[in-house]
Amino acid sequence: MLPTATHPSPSVDYAAVLAQIHEQVAHALGRGRVADYIPELARVDAQQFGMAVVRLDGSVFEVGQARTPFSIQSISKLFALIMALKSDGERLWARVGREPSGNAFNSLVQLEYERGRPRNPFINAGALVITDVLCQHFVVPEMAVVEFLRKLSGNASLSYDSSMAASEQGCSDRNAAMAHFMRSFGNLRNTVPEVIEAYCRQCAIEMSCVDLARAMTVLANHGAIPGSNKRVLDVSSAKRVNALMLTCGAYDASGDFAFRVGLPAKSGVGGGIVALIPGECGICVWSPPLEESGNSLVGSLALELLTTWSLNSIF
Amino acid sequence: MLPTATHPSPSVDYAAVLAQIHEQVAHALGRGRVADYIPELARVDAQQFGMAVVRLDGSVFEVGQARTPFSIQSISKLFALIMALKSDGERLWARVGREPSGNAFNSLVQLEYERGRPRNPFINAGALVITDVLCQHFVVPEMAVVEFLRKLSGNASLSYDSSMAASEQGCSDRNAAMAHFMRSFGNLRNTVPEVIEAYCRQCAIEMSCVDLARAMTVLANHGAIPGSNKRVLDVSSAKRVNALMLTCGAYDASGDFAFRVGLPAKSGVGGGIVALIPGECGICVWSPPLEESGNSLVGSLALELLTTWSLNSIF
Amino acid sequence: MLPTATHPSPSVDYAAVLAQIHEQVAHALGRGRVADYIPELARVDAQQFGMAVVRLDGSVFEVGQARTPFSIQSISKLFALIMALKSDGERLWARVGREPSGNAFNSLVQLEYERGRPRNPFINAGALVITDVLCQHFVVPEMAVVEFLRKLSGNASLSYDSSMAASEQGCSDRNAAMAHFMRSFGNLRNTVPEVIEAYCRQCAIEMSCVDLARAMTVLANHGAIPGSNKRVLDVSSAKRVNALMLTCGAYDASGDFAFRVGLPAKSGVGGGIVALIPGECGICVWSPPLEESGNSLVGSLALELLTTWSLNSIF
Amino acid sequence: MLPTATHPSPSVDYAAVLAQIHEQVAHALGRGRVADYIPELARVDAQQFGMAVVRLDGSVFEVGQARTPFSIQSISKLFALIMALKSDGERLWARVGREPSGNAFNSLVQLEYERGRPRNPFINAGALVITDVLCQHFVVPEMAVVEFLRKLSGNASLSYDSSMAASEQGCSDRNAAMAHFMRSFGNLRNTVPEVIEAYCRQCAIEMSCVDLARAMTVLANHGAIPGSNKRVLDVSSAKRVNALMLTCGAYDASGDFAFRVGLPAKSGVGGGIVALIPGECGICVWSPPLEESGNSLVGSLALELLTTWSLNSIF
Repeated sequence: MLPTATHPSPSVDYAAVLAQIHEQVAHALGRGRVADYIPELARVDAQQFGMAVVRLDGSVFEVGQARTPFSIQSISKLFALIMALKSDGERLWARVGREPSGNAFNSLVQLEYERGRPRNPFINAGALVITDVLCQHFVVPEMAVVEFLRKLSGNASLSYDSSMAASEQGCSDRNAAMAHFMRSFGNLRNTVPEVIEAYCRQCAIEMSCVDLARAMTVLANHGAIPGSNKRVLDVSSAKRVNALMLTCGAYDASGDFAFRVGLPAKSGVGGGIVALIPGECGICVWSPPLEESGNSLVGSLALELLTTWSLNSIF
Repeated sequence: MLPTATHPSPSVDYAAVLAQIHEQVAHALGRGRVADYIPELARVDAQQFGMAVVRLDGSVFEVGQARTPFSIQSISKLFALIMALKSDGERLWARVGREPSGNAFNSLVQLEYERGRPRNPFINAGALVITDVLCQHFVVPEMAVVEFLRKLSGNASLSYDSSMAASEQGCSDRNAAMAHFMRSFGNLRNTVPEVIEAYCRQCAIEMSCVDLARAMTVLANHGAIPGSNKRVLDVSSAKRVNALMLTCGAYDASGDFAFRVGLPAKSGVGGGIVALIPGECGICVWSPPLEESGNSLVGSLALELLTTWSLNSIF
Repeated sequence: MLPTATHPSPSVDYAAVLAQIHEQVAHALGRGRVADYIPELARVDAQQFGMAVVRLDGSVFEVGQARTPFSIQSISKLFALIMALKSDGERLWARVGREPSGNAFNSLVQLEYERGRPRNPFINAGALVITDVLCQHFVVPEMAVVEFLRKLSGNASLSYDSSMAASEQGCSDRNAAMAHFMRSFGNLRNTVPEVIEAYCRQCAIEMSCVDLARAMTVLANHGAIPGSNKRVLDVSSAKRVNALMLTCGAYDASGDFAFRVGLPAKSGVGGGIVALIPGECGICVWSPPLEESGNSLVGSLALELLTTWSLNSIF
Repeated sequence: MLPTATHPSPSVDYAAVLAQIHEQVAHALGRGRVADYIPELARVDAQQFGMAVVRLDGSVFEVGQARTPFSIQSISKLFALIMALKSDGERLWARVGREPSGNAFNSLVQLEYERGRPRNPFINAGALVITDVLCQHFVVPEMAVVEFLRKLSGNASLSYDSSMAASEQGCSDRNAAMAHFMRSFGNLRNTVPEVIEAYCRQCAIEMSCVDLARAMTVLANHGAIPGSNKRVLDVSSAKRVNALMLTCGAYDASGDFAFRVGLPAKSGVGGGIVALIPGECGICVWSPPLEESGNSLVGSLALELLTTWSLNSIF
């Protein structure tokens, strides 16, 4: 039997760390640009900031507006992926790849070259395939995602915002183009309107930092819900999801994010970013204004401070 | 002052780990396909295997043909990058990006879209820009790389194989196409033949696993050569290079490699892979046959076993 | 006043020419491959052949099954274009280009590069924009096309085949992808399902060679319906449409077609090809099996014989 | 034996037509933009205008600076193609296509998709393949082109401008990129520098309108040099070259040019355009300033007037 190193120190004082982060980011609040392609996202208060850490033992640390629900947007892709992996297992990877992609500009020519198989589940094309998988398994797939997140977060009242979802559907032509394109290759089983509707609703789910940080503990705990013995993913699949977040979780700034933060993470244009420290805790930070790649500007900064102060990163 | 966790356990018995790896990979030797686009690479014995770990205290652990020199090929991109960062610092990133790319198919259209700036220094286009930087700073840039590697490895006799370099130059039309294309955007300062010649020679450098594992300790040691107080890179740049290896180091299988191995690593079509554990050791494994993405098949397996047995990964 | 040359000789004996063509192509009937992406097209008899010439004075020359209706498919793009030009005039060209395109592979990246403006009205993307224009002007655009063709051909009973149209709609994902993509650039005003439905129905119109040859006389007559004084297009627009047919009318074999036939022409995957000799006559040939670019194999041959025997071409 | 129509009237009074054109274009001289990517082209006087028609009987009609030599640039691609067809015949088309291409943006991805075979001999990639063919047949290929043009034009003193050629070579990175790219597919037999040098020199040939109009009579005469019985191309190949000019001769405005002018033509960024009327005459017009697609602005206008006044076009 070979010896095993334990990764992060259990002695991090998260209350102190979060307090210090809150102080440090105060000057930067409001910098960046709130997503405005639909009015529902545009009218959010840009000064808001919240952050939460939930350890595997269930203890919660929070600062700022960590109990305010916000639109999770692309963060939903992560949980939809977990659900699709749970139901389809390894054969999911025949329909979607696991490698980083280049910039969005190439997405359609890349899809053509790879015969309708998107490069990973976090680009929109890949997320649409994942939603298509959920459409095969659930009559109302968006509510299945809601239910799953209720269970993971312990917040039984969370749901999606219908008017947000309707707005998203109203400007979903690019996603519909990709969906039809993949369907022409046989990589979409349901109709495009069904998939787009479910996808827009799942993106419009609203959760708070505390909700999301708690939901992330399942990945920090290698696929099992902490406290229960309920396993959502096997250890290897949980590790795979973490690897995907590290290499593809922050849109076209994933490489830079891996350098600055060095944790598996997934961001959304609502300004939220979820992350995790394996064996240790789930994390969520929220601040609406985005940097140019679509990640929360202050959220990225907060996570960078967290890793700088609390642990040695892998790099 | 916040507490800091230390990452890998110092108590790993690398001699035992390497012995066990050697045993485990024996059955797979020869599987995969030796690179054969030039005769010099094609005629290498496919059964060879070597692996070495060099800790920051200088202790060396090795198995198999760990003292046999082999063609380092794309591993040279890593050390050329360190040299270019040392001389140009942060302004290097104006000429080459830091994000993963999609598949090779898109490389030219991506270069066009991004006005001649390659996405990262490990794709060929990016490596050519790095060599161009070295051509600006050194009269004989390939010998500067050789000298740098002599210093890092402590092996004063290593050099490049001229006939290998000549063969590579003889089939360098794709690289020359990319070089001219970047030059048309003003992102190449020297003539294409100069850059291609230096590049082919740097790829033809021959080193052993022990040489390379020792050379990697500078990155494991956050940019300073262990034992001396000589700093090659500042801590932040060293971390940047490690992040790049993690997200872009294994060609078009970087995502899968991050999942399986979870260490910063860089592979070459000569069958070598270098890696490192921060604060702990440099690593090199070598086995010529490649999997379809161009990484050593047995080498990847060996690194996967190493991380499984010796430490918790980040994921 | 400068002298003007008259182009084709009025003394061509079309009855004799068609008889000779019929004889010459007999050995080739059945060669090529009938379109089979929908069952309605696949089950047509491959041995059929018909050809008709209608002169501006109204005289009709025909051989073979020149009175058998067939699916006009992409030939409909030509008449839809005339209708869109009639209603929108020159401002149509702000939404669709007038230049040949490369191969279909590039269509999406080209659309992206040109901000959703297709290169010409005969590629599918361009034809969808044209149908979108018709959707703006007509409540039931496909019936407007039917009515227009009834008027031009003098055949009041022609219509479209509903089951053919439904089949086409069932495999229209690529067209829907392009339509949504253009819509994301603001270059589609109606919903994608509306445009696709009208487009599939217009493609499913059934006409005979004699019907189509007569319909083509309006273009041979520089935009006015012969016999009446009804002008459908001004002279310049008619000339523009003819130029477009010459450079873009035969899919990805337009260059070769211009060489072999040298007449303005438009083909469809139903095996029909319409053409014209300016100032002289409308022409239609039909034979279902296609060469690899999607043009009627025997139809192309027949037109080549026609131009060889009856007039000097422009080249 | 079927009757044959003769195409253009022999009674056109070219002297009167040219005089009228000269008068009509006077107000537009200087409009557009002289090519300025190399200083040698930039410093030409933008007010210059010349035009010449040479009939098959040898009679010459000219106006303006029709005897002033100018840089023929891409017009050389036409004559190089004739030479390559003469030596390689039909098998040339295995290496270069005969279809129009999309816009230049796609040229590299299109080359990749079509495995290094350019779409036609008038885009730069195709012209480089043609020059490569000439490099196989001639020791000094650019002088072979010069000799061929001396023979066709009857002007024994014409040559290329060395300093122009040197300047072109100094900014030939895009062409070199394409040449290396095609070479990586095995579609270039000589070294890239050899091909680029010959290509730049052939583009730097200087000829007058009268020289070029006379050289074009060989194509107007279906491949035989008028007056002698010397055949340069068989009738079918001559027709092929004319078809190529009609569909691909005016860069990315070929479709529009076909509409406006309707004659086989080839333009160059030096401001020259050659054209022909089959069975009738060779034509050349020259005015340095270009429209945005790279064709002479006033030259296009002059040719449009010529066809409007002197003959019915094909459309």
